[in-house]
Amino acid sequence: MTYIDFIGYTASFLIMIAFLPQAYQVWKTKSVEDVSLLTYTILMFGSTSWTTYGLLKDDWPIIITNVTLFVVQGSIIVCKLKYGKKTSH
Amino acid sequence: MTYIDFIGYTASFLIMIAFLPQAYQVWKTKSVEDVSLLTYTILMFGSTSWTTYGLLKDDWPIIITNVTLFVVQGSIIVCKLKYGKKTSH
Repeated sequence: MTYIDFIGYTASFLIMIAFLPQAYQVWKTKSVEDVSLLTYTILMFGSTSWTTYGLLKDDWPIIITNVTLFVVQGSIIVCKLKYGKKTSH
Repeated sequence: MTYIDFIGYTASFLIMIAFLPQAYQVWKTKSVEDVSLLTYTILMFGSTSWTTYGLLKDDWPIIITNVTLFVVQGSIIVCKLKYGKKTSH
């Protein structure tokens, strides 16, 4: 592994774990009013596109990061749709 | 531009615009309670690492995306710190 790969995997790891606190918070508090549904919807389209790009360039930090992101961001969307119905938002 | 580059730039564009609705929402509503400060802090470290990785690999979709993300995510953190003080969170 080169040092460039190491930076790539560090970057992947940071982005992969980044949405876990947000996912935990909306799951725990069931409060999703301030979370933007549009942001997470676009993010999921983005994760899908980045995964495709990574596959075509055989770039594993990109692939691993974006498959994980798709799952975590998806769980935030599920919480938003589930708990958001309790209010008028 | 190859079709792989095109997918990369599409992915970049989606991720770049993704946080704009969230930034607009917290700026407009001044309500930031449900937004995770830890998530956006980690995202900014991630953007910095990805930018470094992109520079070292001369990968412009990665560079452009992550410099933009740094700015937009930074603005969400500013709103969180500014408006979050109004409550006990």
